[in-house]
Amino acid sequence: MSSQLAPVTLGDLQRPVRARLERVPLELQRIVAADFGLIAEVNAHLFQMQGKLFRPTLLLLAEEAAGVRDVRSITLAAVIELIHLATLVHDDSVDHSVLRRGMPTINSLFSHQVSVIMGDYLYSRAVIELVGLDDLEPLRVLSRVTNEMTVGEMRQLLAHEPLEFSEQSYDLLIQAKTASLLSGACEVGALRAAPPARRALRRFGGALGMAFQIVDDVLDYTGDPSVTGKPTGSDLREHKVTLPLIAALPRMDPAGRRQVDVLMASAEPEDALIEEVIAAVGEAGGLEYARERALLLAQQADAELEVLPPSPARDALRASITYVVDRRR
Amino acid sequence: MSSQLAPVTLGDLQRPVRARLERVPLELQRIVAADFGLIAEVNAHLFQMQGKLFRPTLLLLAEEAAGVRDVRSITLAAVIELIHLATLVHDDSVDHSVLRRGMPTINSLFSHQVSVIMGDYLYSRAVIELVGLDDLEPLRVLSRVTNEMTVGEMRQLLAHEPLEFSEQSYDLLIQAKTASLLSGACEVGALRAAPPARRALRRFGGALGMAFQIVDDVLDYTGDPSVTGKPTGSDLREHKVTLPLIAALPRMDPAGRRQVDVLMASAEPEDALIEEVIAAVGEAGGLEYARERALLLAQQADAELEVLPPSPARDALRASITYVVDRRR
Repeated sequence: MSSQLAPVTLGDLQRPVRARLERVPLELQRIVAADFGLIAEVNAHLFQMQGKLFRPTLLLLAEEAAGVRDVRSITLAAVIELIHLATLVHDDSVDHSVLRRGMPTINSLFSHQVSVIMGDYLYSRAVIELVGLDDLEPLRVLSRVTNEMTVGEMRQLLAHEPLEFSEQSYDLLIQAKTASLLSGACEVGALRAAPPARRALRRFGGALGMAFQIVDDVLDYTGDPSVTGKPTGSDLREHKVTLPLIAALPRMDPAGRRQVDVLMASAEPEDALIEEVIAAVGEAGGLEYARERALLLAQQADAELEVLPPSPARDALRASITYVVDRRR
Repeated sequence: MSSQLAPVTLGDLQRPVRARLERVPLELQRIVAADFGLIAEVNAHLFQMQGKLFRPTLLLLAEEAAGVRDVRSITLAAVIELIHLATLVHDDSVDHSVLRRGMPTINSLFSHQVSVIMGDYLYSRAVIELVGLDDLEPLRVLSRVTNEMTVGEMRQLLAHEPLEFSEQSYDLLIQAKTASLLSGACEVGALRAAPPARRALRRFGGALGMAFQIVDDVLDYTGDPSVTGKPTGSDLREHKVTLPLIAALPRMDPAGRRQVDVLMASAEPEDALIEEVIAAVGEAGGLEYARERALLLAQQADAELEVLPPSPARDALRASITYVVDRRR
């Protein structure tokens, strides 16, 4: 999917839905508003670390591309971001992460306790908001997605045994952890569309999400820390097994495999060892394999859009594939 | 509410709904069933530590007392217990508790990470199940209850400053943390009843829940550790300010207040100091005051039942008040 032209920016994708997207942050603030001081304080911090609204963007683009309009879509877009936010708050707490989007995480700034409770607060607010729409359909999609994400998180906890963690397990993990919410965003945007368009957009989001996570995992090996904002090799340091390593292992020589064993057995692996394993994974073709799988998924995502009529929103969804595959962070 | 007769047992209350209540554990197992090994393992442990089903009992009794029958009530009763369970899993993780119902907690047996994710898993399963009932009413009640419980947990985190934590704050805390779910259980049982009965049962559950928590907090001061299963004075040890202390403080002499200050400033207060503060709270009338408030709430709960026609289920709800107020653990 790489192009020789200027790279696609998030701003490019967001153009067809810009006006509506700009209303999402305020809607999100309305939904999570709290009287209780401590919750209001955490909310204020969460708004400072506001993300790129990629999932709301997909939801609104899917809606436009499906040719439907739903008065509830700003609310639905805010709820998608809210579910994402609730997940991040719990993930950071589970991973003991200190930084997120360049800002201190809730667990580091407040406490681990506040993070656990705050994630629950945000998620239950999302459910209340969905109930208030007086329609079970968005809830049906999003409660399944949320549950799938928790299964993905559980799978993640066990993804530390390179010899036992297969590509199939990896696929199940990234499907549950990442693809499910992107797929849900696209499907919820198209709830009022005809079933074939709704199904196509759900599958589009799923394939895009799988590609998104694979690219993320490749960037962990190859990314420029000054661009990605985190040190190269973080996953290896935390003993997280991802696709590049899974693909490389069977093709690595015994010396390379021994290095992987040493790294996985070391509580705090040295930078030099991490660099050597990164190099060995590259030489064994692990990065190339992962990039090819991401491109294949990108093609699948692209093909799903064929069923939709041409429109600026469909073009933007197509561009979102390039954005995901070509991104540097 | 104390009686000279044999104490009311949970078995007594459960008699009118016994046959249906016995189906709840299996229904709960069906709802949370998981393919993924780690989740199935945690589920198995949770079933070993199964509780007394007090909330499902209230739901089923409320339904019978309101004279309605709902084919969904076994499922709703299981969902109420599931929401309670999800809350306990996160609470234990937040409090770093080691034991629950005499068994190791999920955080101590597995890990803190597993607890956070498992609580999310259980709660999202509850939402999926409610969505599957194709009716927004139970979700409307229970999503608000769940959100209220998270606010209660946040309030709990700040309930460590005896001079700043008022009786009004305490009331808001126990309303959110405990009464909301008991109230929700009774209301969901009566969803198909006429509005006055539904409202009365909701208020009944709320007053019962407030009394329940106050009695719990009094037992922490007075309970026999061999019966309650936890050492006397646990709340003071963890610097949790509850009603007995709030009520006693203004009536304590300067020496007593100084002891409270020393205890609250001490990271690990000595047993002797805890015993002295317990004695001082008793002498200043704090325990008596708390017991009287519990009895007042018990009377309010009792009065709410007047609107319902006489029935064995109404008698059992009445007996549940005595059970709550007279319990020793």
